[in-house]
Amino acid sequence: MSVEAKKDHIEEIKTLLERLDHDSLRQLVAEMHASDIGKVLSELEDEEAVELFKLLTPEAASEVLLEIDERLRKTLIAAITPDKLIAVVDEMETDDAADVISELPIEDAKQVLNGIGKEDSLAVQKLLVYPEDTAGGKMQAELVSVSEEATVEETIEAVRRRSKDIEQIANVFVVDAFNRLTGVVSLDKLILAGPDVKIKTIAAEPIKVRTDVDQEEVAKLFRQYDLVAMPVVDYDGRLVGRITVDDVVDVIEEEIFEDFYRVAGLNLEERALDPATRSIWMRAPWLLINLATAFLAASVVKVFEGTIEKLVILAVLMPIVAGMGGNAATQTITVVVRGLALGELSLKNARWVLFKEATVGLANGFLTGLVATLVSYLLGANIMVGVLLFLAMTANLFIAGLSGAFIPIVLKWFKVDPAISATVFVTTCTDIGGFFSFLGLATVFMRMGLL
Amino acid sequence: MSVEAKKDHIEEIKTLLERLDHDSLRQLVAEMHASDIGKVLSELEDEEAVELFKLLTPEAASEVLLEIDERLRKTLIAAITPDKLIAVVDEMETDDAADVISELPIEDAKQVLNGIGKEDSLAVQKLLVYPEDTAGGKMQAELVSVSEEATVEETIEAVRRRSKDIEQIANVFVVDAFNRLTGVVSLDKLILAGPDVKIKTIAAEPIKVRTDVDQEEVAKLFRQYDLVAMPVVDYDGRLVGRITVDDVVDVIEEEIFEDFYRVAGLNLEERALDPATRSIWMRAPWLLINLATAFLAASVVKVFEGTIEKLVILAVLMPIVAGMGGNAATQTITVVVRGLALGELSLKNARWVLFKEATVGLANGFLTGLVATLVSYLLGANIMVGVLLFLAMTANLFIAGLSGAFIPIVLKWFKVDPAISATVFVTTCTDIGGFFSFLGLATVFMRMGLL
Repeated sequence: MSVEAKKDHIEEIKTLLERLDHDSLRQLVAEMHASDIGKVLSELEDEEAVELFKLLTPEAASEVLLEIDERLRKTLIAAITPDKLIAVVDEMETDDAADVISELPIEDAKQVLNGIGKEDSLAVQKLLVYPEDTAGGKMQAELVSVSEEATVEETIEAVRRRSKDIEQIANVFVVDAFNRLTGVVSLDKLILAGPDVKIKTIAAEPIKVRTDVDQEEVAKLFRQYDLVAMPVVDYDGRLVGRITVDDVVDVIEEEIFEDFYRVAGLNLEERALDPATRSIWMRAPWLLINLATAFLAASVVKVFEGTIEKLVILAVLMPIVAGMGGNAATQTITVVVRGLALGELSLKNARWVLFKEATVGLANGFLTGLVATLVSYLLGANIMVGVLLFLAMTANLFIAGLSGAFIPIVLKWFKVDPAISATVFVTTCTDIGGFFSFLGLATVFMRMGLL
Repeated sequence: MSVEAKKDHIEEIKTLLERLDHDSLRQLVAEMHASDIGKVLSELEDEEAVELFKLLTPEAASEVLLEIDERLRKTLIAAITPDKLIAVVDEMETDDAADVISELPIEDAKQVLNGIGKEDSLAVQKLLVYPEDTAGGKMQAELVSVSEEATVEETIEAVRRRSKDIEQIANVFVVDAFNRLTGVVSLDKLILAGPDVKIKTIAAEPIKVRTDVDQEEVAKLFRQYDLVAMPVVDYDGRLVGRITVDDVVDVIEEEIFEDFYRVAGLNLEERALDPATRSIWMRAPWLLINLATAFLAASVVKVFEGTIEKLVILAVLMPIVAGMGGNAATQTITVVVRGLALGELSLKNARWVLFKEATVGLANGFLTGLVATLVSYLLGANIMVGVLLFLAMTANLFIAGLSGAFIPIVLKWFKVDPAISATVFVTTCTDIGGFFSFLGLATVFMRMGLL
């Protein structure tokens, strides 16, 4: 299927839906990839989407449900009969089935678990036990394992037996008599070995994780060892599942976005398409904390009310000092958060980074301070006010670099609640730093008779 | 190898380096995974790292070089002889060889290209032609392809021949007499088919890309179709290379970080461990643009100098209004950027999102405005100043929601230069919006005799 040819499907499907031409629709979607059908469903009105979804075979429906967002998935699931839903879930891999079932109302979930095959039902129920963000929560029960005593021929036979149910087999796991994982054999090694060779002689040491390992750690191992699939073991080292790379890609994305959500003071659960009421309540707490810190910064300004009264131009220029600090801090925070996420920043070089960011802040404070002084002078401001601007901006961008690097690193080290926002603390530093340095110096200048 | 057991290597290696016990070191690193050796090298002092690196076999060295950052890679490469470098590059896959060679000074690059095998050299030179961020720049020449007329047995023989040079074969590509790609067969399908079956009867339609497709698009296809490896074709549809999922994982990360770098006004090339001078020059241009917009906002305050002179408390409270707008805008920008990156936001729902974010801004402006009024009243401010605060915050958070959603969406649509910072524009809106609404309303209140 070529990438270019897919674009017109949506129009064609809309026309066929209007004409109620179900036969042509069935034929058309039978030729489409699940992810393309998912895209079309997301672009249709809900009623149209339901109509189209009902025409899918259980197999196609099972794949399509994994390609759409949670809201649409719930809408479509609610629109089909319990029997159809059971047939659809029956077609899924166990990890996907567990994800879908965990979104169902409890009664529906029970009905589906009773309806699907007993073996699958047990496997899914086992998966439902693990927290979603651990290796156990990400793994699937589908895998090929053989005993250490098996030959290559027997192993190929095992692959053959399971190949209908399992996508991307990638490798075969070797276990001892107690089902403890002892080795791994990739399919290309399997193809190349003679049929009578004992599997354990060609097995490699597996890179594995325990069920309770955090998904972020799992993702790191996949990256580090360029894995396609990784076995998951329980506390006794017994093989209980495997994680495939496509699930890990989602985890990697999720983790990066979480970092920036934290920075911006957002609830990790919020999504762009959430209803407004949900977003309002999720964002309000952090805005109220921001408000408290804003009053704190304002109280600094209040101290210097007398100074401002004498020279109102200070009120005009002070937001420049505070604002530039905020901008420089945002740059630093973003670079540091990225470095922490990629593992470039560690205990070893944290002090160096602090020093570097403080230096960058100082240098750019000096530079932008000079420019600001020049501009304010050209706009007709008192030369001493320009000097003030220069000194305060240099000081505040230094504070921005220091706090912008220090606060995310400290938050990361102490593994503080992920909902903590670095920006709140850092902008409090740059607001207070900006107002205090600018207005404080102005007061000193006045006392010295310079202003 | 278990994850826990690796931690002590660094201490052991340092001790052995001090003792100059090269034999034990060779033995120790021979048992370690390349990515673990890379980690150790990154944590050693440069001199120690060079000493250890020189002890590695060319094969181990070739893998280790891909696991470390560019600075260390250059240091280590500079420390070994040209012959050793040639031996090391010779062990690499073509895409990695091309990446390493492209980092060398031109004379060294020529020497290495002449030194490695002729066939490899040609393959690498072909890869060097493609821009780094396209499918051509990400692909490797290593792949297994067979003619449409081949049998399964012949195909397995082809896999066997190439299996020493190629990691993660994953699938075999089927080509016609003109080397045009016509199909793909995964290894598990290959294992399951009888030896005399014609390969074209079990081949599937390939999901492929042309060499000039952007890496972001490539990553989308991998995600969409859960691929492990994807063939790359030239303008005539001829098979020229393949991209593996481990390279795509890096692309996905890179693309997300780029989005947030753009938001923060950072150069996409900057890294956390760059020297300070580099960071200073890279960040300065955006800070100067910020400075210009800050003066713009200040000029709004300047207009109301007379109003502030009459009531200095306005200068104390106005940063609260502007700052809260900035905070709310950051929340909106982050949610919208994520939605755009994940493809949740499209032309279809952009208007809805604009409306939603404006509503969220209005509601949270109302809420935080009420709280701010109450707090300012309790702190002894004039009741009418409190009303002013309430009205201005409601207006400014509405502006924040609207501009925070509108500007990233518009930038994305117009595919503006990736170095464009959404934050600059949005905070300009919230600064000006905050000052103008607060001070403008104050002036009106004064004229009406309310203040």
